[in-house]
Amino acid sequence: MTEPLRIGIAGLGTVGASVVRVLHEKAGQLSRQCGRDIIVTAVSARDRLRVRGVDVSAMTWFDDPEAMAKGAPIDVLVELIGGDSGPAEHCVRSALAAGRHVVTANKALLARHGVSLATMAEERGVLLNFEAAVAGGIPVIKAMRESLSGNTVSRVFGILNGTCNYILTRMEREGISFDACLKDAQRLGYAEADPTFDIEGNDTAHKLAILTSIAFGTQAAPDAIYLEGISNISLADIRAAKALGYKIKLLGVAQKTPAGIEQRVHPTMVPEASVIAQVDGVTNAVAIETDILGELLMVGPGAGGNATASAVVGDIADIAKARPGFQHAPAFGHPAKTLQPCPKAEMRSHAGGYFIRLTVHDRIGVFAAIATRMAQNGISLESIVQHNPDDDASDVTRKTVIMVTHETSEAAIRTATAEMLEDGHLTDKPQVIRIERAG
Amino acid sequence: MTEPLRIGIAGLGTVGASVVRVLHEKAGQLSRQCGRDIIVTAVSARDRLRVRGVDVSAMTWFDDPEAMAKGAPIDVLVELIGGDSGPAEHCVRSALAAGRHVVTANKALLARHGVSLATMAEERGVLLNFEAAVAGGIPVIKAMRESLSGNTVSRVFGILNGTCNYILTRMEREGISFDACLKDAQRLGYAEADPTFDIEGNDTAHKLAILTSIAFGTQAAPDAIYLEGISNISLADIRAAKALGYKIKLLGVAQKTPAGIEQRVHPTMVPEASVIAQVDGVTNAVAIETDILGELLMVGPGAGGNATASAVVGDIADIAKARPGFQHAPAFGHPAKTLQPCPKAEMRSHAGGYFIRLTVHDRIGVFAAIATRMAQNGISLESIVQHNPDDDASDVTRKTVIMVTHETSEAAIRTATAEMLEDGHLTDKPQVIRIERAG
Repeated sequence: MTEPLRIGIAGLGTVGASVVRVLHEKAGQLSRQCGRDIIVTAVSARDRLRVRGVDVSAMTWFDDPEAMAKGAPIDVLVELIGGDSGPAEHCVRSALAAGRHVVTANKALLARHGVSLATMAEERGVLLNFEAAVAGGIPVIKAMRESLSGNTVSRVFGILNGTCNYILTRMEREGISFDACLKDAQRLGYAEADPTFDIEGNDTAHKLAILTSIAFGTQAAPDAIYLEGISNISLADIRAAKALGYKIKLLGVAQKTPAGIEQRVHPTMVPEASVIAQVDGVTNAVAIETDILGELLMVGPGAGGNATASAVVGDIADIAKARPGFQHAPAFGHPAKTLQPCPKAEMRSHAGGYFIRLTVHDRIGVFAAIATRMAQNGISLESIVQHNPDDDASDVTRKTVIMVTHETSEAAIRTATAEMLEDGHLTDKPQVIRIERAG
Repeated sequence: MTEPLRIGIAGLGTVGASVVRVLHEKAGQLSRQCGRDIIVTAVSARDRLRVRGVDVSAMTWFDDPEAMAKGAPIDVLVELIGGDSGPAEHCVRSALAAGRHVVTANKALLARHGVSLATMAEERGVLLNFEAAVAGGIPVIKAMRESLSGNTVSRVFGILNGTCNYILTRMEREGISFDACLKDAQRLGYAEADPTFDIEGNDTAHKLAILTSIAFGTQAAPDAIYLEGISNISLADIRAAKALGYKIKLLGVAQKTPAGIEQRVHPTMVPEASVIAQVDGVTNAVAIETDILGELLMVGPGAGGNATASAVVGDIADIAKARPGFQHAPAFGHPAKTLQPCPKAEMRSHAGGYFIRLTVHDRIGVFAAIATRMAQNGISLESIVQHNPDDDASDVTRKTVIMVTHETSEAAIRTATAEMLEDGHLTDKPQVIRIERAG
C-alpha cells in the first residue's frame, strides 16, 4: 500500500470539526476506497481551548495556519478559514508554493483569486479541489469539471443560497412577511446576525462566479455579476406568482448570449411545474445545460457542517486516489493559462420574459397609458390584469396592475417603466421580476 | 504534452456514432481539458457499409471486436455492443487481459460479470469506467464512486427507465390507457418493438444492481432483485393516486434494512410534492441517501445517443487525465476483492406504506370484512374509501375499495389480501402498490 496521505486542517469550525470526525470514523472505509490511509497530522485554529467535540490531541497544533501550510509534514492543506484574503489566502498560497495539494471550501477566495491559485497549482502539478465551495454537498464542481468534458455549456443556473430559499419557501407556504421569515431564519441558525451577504445575493454571486468560470472556460469575474437580492420581495409578489403558475426563487444564472456572458443573481419566476420549483427550504439546486448531454439538475443540501464535510472528504479522497504528479486536473476544468477574460454581457441586453407589478392611481385611462408605454417600447404582453391592491382593499384611490411580457429586452423594460413613473401614474416604484425558463 | 490516447470503439450504433462525432468535433477542447489528444484509431461493427453520418475512413476497421480489443494499437476499448455475453463480453475481457482501459455502457454485462471484470481491471491497474450504463447522461456513477467517498449509503432509488416514465406520465396527464401510451411510445421510438424488457422492469433491475454494488460495497446481484413492471397499472390507479396526493413512478430501490439489503423494482406511489414526482417523460432521476451528505438527487436524460455519448466521453476524458497505472480507482468504488456477497432481504420483510385497490361484490358487510382482515393482520389504515368503479358506473353489483396503510410489512399485506380473496368478497385480484418516502 502507498504511504498514508497526511492532512493539515486550517479552521476548526463546524465544517472543520465534521471533517476531522468523518476522517476518523470512516478511516477504514476510506483506506479501502483510496488504497491508502488518510490521517490528519496537523490542525490550526484561533482558539486552542475551544471544545469542538472532536479529539485533536494526536495532531500537531499550529496557532498560525501559514506556518502549518509551510512547515508541517503534510501532503494536503484543507483550508476552512474563509475570507478572500488574510490568513486563508496566505496559507493556501504557502501550501501551493510548497507543492502541497489544497482542498478548500472558500468561495470568496476562489471567486477573487481562482486564476492565480489554479496557475500555481497547475505549475506545481498539485491539485486544487473546492467541491464544497459551491452548493455544499452537491458534487457540481466534479460534474462540470470531469463528467461534462467535451460538452459546451450554454447556461448554468441554480438555487445557491439556502437562507434565501428558506425565506422564500416560508413566505410562499405560510404567507408570512419577509421580515418575519428572516427573523425566524436567524433564530433557527439559517441566517447570520447580519444577513446582508446572503439576502442581497453576494453569497450566491461568489458561487456563480466559480460555476461560470468552469462552465465557459473564463476567468472568474465576480464584479461582472448583476446583483439583486430578495429583500424587496413582498407577499403580493409571491401571491401574484402563484396565481400565474410561478414560484419565486433567488437564482444565480450564467448564460452565453450573443452579447457575451450574462452573469446575474436576482429573484426569478420559475414555472411551478418545473423540477427546480419544488426545491424548497435550505436545499440547493444547480442546473446545467449543454449541447451534448442536454440538461442536468442536481439537488441537495447546500450548507451545514456534515454536507460540506462530505464534499471536503470527497476532494481529499480524490487526492488520495491520484498519485501525486501523475494526474492532469485543471482546477477550473480548463488549464488556468487558457482561461479567457469573461466577455461581460451588459444587463440591458438581457432577453427574457418579465413580471411587472405596478401600483397605480385609480384614474380613467391609466390602464391604457401603461399598455401604450409597453407597446411603444416594442414589448409584447402575455397578460395584463388590474385589481384592488392586496394590502388594503378599502383603498379605492389605488389599483394593482400585473403584467407578464413575452420575451423582450431589459433595456425596453427599463425605459418603459421609467416612462410610466415620469407619466405620474404610479404611486410606487414598479416591481420587476425576471422570468426564467426551467425544465 | 503526453502521447495521444488511442481509442478503439466496438459498436457503431446511435451511441457509437455520437461518440465518434463528439471526439472529432470537440477534439481541441478535450485536448486542453485532458492535457493530451484523444484519437479514435480503430472501430468495429457488424456492417461496414452502413451509413452512420460519421466518417470512419481514417480508422482501422475490424469485423471482429475481439480482434480489435486484442490486436489494435489502442489504449482504451469503448464497448457499445451490448448484451451480457457474446462479443461484448469477449472483447471487454480481451482488452482488460491485454492491459487496456475499458469504457462501456453495457449495464447487462456489468450486472452479470461486474465483479470478475473489475477484478481483472484492478489487477492490471487499468480503469473500467461505465458512467453510461446507469441513467444515461446523469453522472451518478462518478458521484457515488468518488464524491461520496467516506459516506455510508442507506438508500438509493430512482427513475431509471425512460420508456416507463414516458408511459406513466402520459397516462397521468392525458388519461390515456397503458396500451395506447405504449403504442405511442413505440411509434416515437421511446419503446422497442418488444417492450417487455423495459416495461417489466428488467432494464431498471440491471441498472439497480450496479447502483446497489457501489452503494453498499456488495457484489452485483441482479437475480436477487424483486421485479414488478408497469403493465398492470390502470387509469383507475393513476386517478386514485392523484386523489390521494401521489404520483405513480416505476422506481428501482436499494435499501439497507435490518433483514439485509432490499433490492426492488416496482410501480411506486411517491408524494406529489416531492421533487422526484416532477420528473416526467423520458427523463431519469437518481436519489442517494447517506449519513454524512444527506440526500442528493440528480435528474437528467437517461437515454439517447448524445446524452449517453456525453457519459462515454466523460469516462474517456477521465482516462486521458489519469496517467496509466498511477490512479487507484476501483470500478465499483470499493476494491473488487472486498465486495461482499449481497445479503438479500426477502421481499416479505419489506416495511412501508401500501396503497390497495380492491374491486368487491356490493354486499352488506364486505367493507367491514375487509377492514377486519386488515386489523387481524396488524395493519393500521390511514384511510379507506368505497365508491363506484371508475370503469363502469352503471354496474351496481361491484364497488371499488381503496385503502392506504400506515407502515406495515409486505408479509402482512400478502396474508391479508390472500385472505380477502379466499373470503370470496373480491371480484378481481387486489391491486397493491407500495408507497415510497421521497423528499
